[in-house]
Amino acid sequence: MANPSQADMIAQQFVHHYYQKFDTDRSQLQSLYTPASVMCFEGSVCQGDEQIGKKLVSLPFQKVAHVVTVMDSLLIEESKLLISVIGQLKTDEDPPHGFAQTFILAPVGDNLMVFHDIFRLLVHNM
Amino acid sequence: MANPSQADMIAQQFVHHYYQKFDTDRSQLQSLYTPASVMCFEGSVCQGDEQIGKKLVSLPFQKVAHVVTVMDSLLIEESKLLISVIGQLKTDEDPPHGFAQTFILAPVGDNLMVFHDIFRLLVHNM
Repeated sequence: MANPSQADMIAQQFVHHYYQKFDTDRSQLQSLYTPASVMCFEGSVCQGDEQIGKKLVSLPFQKVAHVVTVMDSLLIEESKLLISVIGQLKTDEDPPHGFAQTFILAPVGDNLMVFHDIFRLLVHNM
Repeated sequence: MANPSQADMIAQQFVHHYYQKFDTDRSQLQSLYTPASVMCFEGSVCQGDEQIGKKLVSLPFQKVAHVVTVMDSLLIEESKLLISVIGQLKTDEDPPHGFAQTFILAPVGDNLMVFHDIFRLLVHNM
């Protein structure tokens, strides 16, 4: 990640990959986290890839589709990326809901892993 | 910042302080950033406290009021804090708009400074 535009391209690829996995087979998401990762999902904190993976798989819907409205990314020191996503998601037959999600990614070997993840639905912000 | 609940209290204090300054005299906000800080404001990147301060002061409204709907924070290594805020803001006589803002704070001497800041209005996400 030599420069901001390269970082932005990598952030876009990651976000596309993340929600594609989420929407098709979210049991695969655990592999994007590490034992040191932390997720704050609707205010509830999960520590480590196993706990995070279980939480994501246990969410009470069958079908889910994310649409990204806007994504911003900033390079932070040591090849880390801060990513902010705003979008909409639709679960089962429910009406679409806005969401905001923030990731911090860092490389582990050749892979970019999620170390921090904060997710909120925007339902109470209207 | 020894533990998550202490970190969360510090995050809450910071967020209160930040929007209070923003809403009463935003020329003071520059002092919360450093020469190494980066802000991505509605997709436009500002580098360093001077450029960030100028941008915030130049925003085209007289009156502004932020209301925080929800705030999440995670401790990241080396006493840094990741903060995600979702809220509403009202400028002049316009109707309120939702916003999402992400901060990374880190200590400089005795002060906690903003090193990364991503701001988006939620107007296109309805």
